[in-house]
Amino acid sequence: MSTENIVNLMQDLGRNARKAASDLACVPDAKKVVALSSAATFIRQGCGKILLANQQDIEAAKANGVASAFIDRLFLDKARVEDIAQGLEAVASLPDPVGEVIGDWHRPNGLHIRRVRVPLGVIGVIYESRPNVTTDAGGLCIKSGNAVILRGGTESYNSSAVLAEYLVQGIKEAGLPTSSVQLVPTRDRAAVGEMLSMAEHIDVIIPRGGRSLTERVTRDSRIPVFKHLDGICHVYIDSSADLKKAVDITINAKLRRTGICGAAETLLVHKDTIETVLPEIIEGLITGGCEVRGDTVVQSLDARVRPATEKDWETEYLAPIISIRTVENLDQAIFHIGRYGSDHTESIVTEDEAAVDEFFGRVDSGILLHNASTQFADGGEFGMGAEIGISTGKLHARGPVGVEQLTTYKYLVRGQGQVRP
Amino acid sequence: MSTENIVNLMQDLGRNARKAASDLACVPDAKKVVALSSAATFIRQGCGKILLANQQDIEAAKANGVASAFIDRLFLDKARVEDIAQGLEAVASLPDPVGEVIGDWHRPNGLHIRRVRVPLGVIGVIYESRPNVTTDAGGLCIKSGNAVILRGGTESYNSSAVLAEYLVQGIKEAGLPTSSVQLVPTRDRAAVGEMLSMAEHIDVIIPRGGRSLTERVTRDSRIPVFKHLDGICHVYIDSSADLKKAVDITINAKLRRTGICGAAETLLVHKDTIETVLPEIIEGLITGGCEVRGDTVVQSLDARVRPATEKDWETEYLAPIISIRTVENLDQAIFHIGRYGSDHTESIVTEDEAAVDEFFGRVDSGILLHNASTQFADGGEFGMGAEIGISTGKLHARGPVGVEQLTTYKYLVRGQGQVRP
Repeated sequence: MSTENIVNLMQDLGRNARKAASDLACVPDAKKVVALSSAATFIRQGCGKILLANQQDIEAAKANGVASAFIDRLFLDKARVEDIAQGLEAVASLPDPVGEVIGDWHRPNGLHIRRVRVPLGVIGVIYESRPNVTTDAGGLCIKSGNAVILRGGTESYNSSAVLAEYLVQGIKEAGLPTSSVQLVPTRDRAAVGEMLSMAEHIDVIIPRGGRSLTERVTRDSRIPVFKHLDGICHVYIDSSADLKKAVDITINAKLRRTGICGAAETLLVHKDTIETVLPEIIEGLITGGCEVRGDTVVQSLDARVRPATEKDWETEYLAPIISIRTVENLDQAIFHIGRYGSDHTESIVTEDEAAVDEFFGRVDSGILLHNASTQFADGGEFGMGAEIGISTGKLHARGPVGVEQLTTYKYLVRGQGQVRP
Repeated sequence: MSTENIVNLMQDLGRNARKAASDLACVPDAKKVVALSSAATFIRQGCGKILLANQQDIEAAKANGVASAFIDRLFLDKARVEDIAQGLEAVASLPDPVGEVIGDWHRPNGLHIRRVRVPLGVIGVIYESRPNVTTDAGGLCIKSGNAVILRGGTESYNSSAVLAEYLVQGIKEAGLPTSSVQLVPTRDRAAVGEMLSMAEHIDVIIPRGGRSLTERVTRDSRIPVFKHLDGICHVYIDSSADLKKAVDITINAKLRRTGICGAAETLLVHKDTIETVLPEIIEGLITGGCEVRGDTVVQSLDARVRPATEKDWETEYLAPIISIRTVENLDQAIFHIGRYGSDHTESIVTEDEAAVDEFFGRVDSGILLHNASTQFADGGEFGMGAEIGISTGKLHARGPVGVEQLTTYKYLVRGQGQVRP
């Protein structure tokens, strides 16, 4: 497609989205529920068509020789399609954040001020090869009253297109504007550049994918970004940690699922607990199929421990590998996390309340846990319903990005003729 | 200064600020109160030195032939210095937002989740020739636990430097890190460019000044910006408006102070109320020294009304000029505001509750008022204490930016050894 055509195409999507957003901002929740539930039904009914489109994507991807982990993210079967439909129903049933009064006060002059949640407007979601992001993100945006422009990975184009089509059918069924959800209808990569420049049409960009995608989007976007960079999550075992908790939490935090952003990547251990907890933890990790890399102290405990280098402390493995470092004290642990962490999620294992307070106060990450696994870093586990990702930025959305984080607020002020003296 | 020296200088400021922010995040409110109250005392005691520095700035500005409105913003006298001191004391006495629990719930698995306000970190404030921004912004940042890097206008350099010095003295008095407040110690404009690129050291940039400053900062910044663009505020007089309220509110909204962002710039009048309210309003405005520009209908009411052009609808006069347009209905008023407004503040004058609901629901501005003057668009008038500006952006901070808007949150999760199934 020519540059001019891409620009025109994207500008049209932008204008349509802005218009749809304006209508969508005021619709009652019941219509949004109908839209998402109907979409779920259409997706179930259209499972065959979805799987066919997905098969085309898979074959093309295989022909291009992509990695098997990539194929796994791309792949859909009947069970995964059912998950997609249920996901939409779950989002439908969340409380509607729009219209919620989050502040309400009177002024001495009689003015009555309310602060009320409203949608952000238009959200741009740029994602890689997971077709389910089409409906996850689309559903969350609709529920929160936002129009959305979806730019899926080129490899999942056919799968995403069919899913988006059913989502739009659901929207139509509810009588909502069909441009509420638009999938960028071209694989041309120039469309992403244009999308990132449309600040007049898009209010926030959400990248969902690997680090290189997020970095590219953050670098090039003229629109604010809810970014999710690395999840270099830490477990710190304090001097007064309970042995069983330390073992259970570390092994769960690392190995329950290694590919999610809340998986622990580095274990920090207070020097006083090395001999009591570390042998059992190392044994459990290795038995669980985990490669263990450690500093010299850790290496001295078990011959199977490989040396950790500086690079290990700053690596998000997303794999069954862990780096373990011994620290002199809590202070050193906090310093390590500040230096190498990614402000995502960290856990302290301790029975000492003062240590918890210090850890909670001084570590500057979105989620801090005490005596619990880092794998709880998840919107669903937080009771927020579905999420569109975990934000490691500090502005607007921090931690899980659910329907509430996709809203802003406005002030509604009622008077009886007041003028300012 | 050479480019390399500027980079080194700014990087040093950035690193110092980041370090100070880390300490400042956890200090008890009492210390922040001491810092700001002491600074107020030092400023009162140092009034002579401040006025001397200000005189140098004024003379240099006059020698450069700047406009008299500019000189007025730059000018300090004893009363203005006292205002500055009192401003710091007022900020000191605000409730500390840091540590406030803004969410608190339990999960079925026993996890106890709290959402707690924490400082943003490091804030960069770039402002023009008002020296009082040094202490207003500095005080709000300290109170909210943030370190701040201040880049004042070159013309107010001497005045700002002395004020910043006293602020730092107050900080020292309280035993807080002196790098909590740093004024960029050079007039070199290259420092601004470097500042806008230091995303690793600065979390948010707040421009305070005219449109060209804000636009430049928004365009060039690699750091999120709390932006305040125009305040093209509207008053809409509905068909069922009360005559007296309509007159009082319009005249106050336009003329109480014409140079503030909450001043009304355009009046929209329902065609049914033109003959009842408009003659009196036009008379009041013109008597008050206001130039009135209107469409042909408005012109036909009073020979003194000049023709309004398309350009008038999109102009923030910040002066005693108003544009008046007649509309067919509420819908047309909402459309006009959406097209020409700046998402800042709009007021509807009506006795019809359904019209209020529609106006509040469909107009996408940060502040909407019913039967009250747009000049109430102010953090102080909202009961939020001092503000650093009014954000016309939608993300994170919308409307008045006070101490609360200078914070973010983190999740603190307490468990008893929970692992995720």
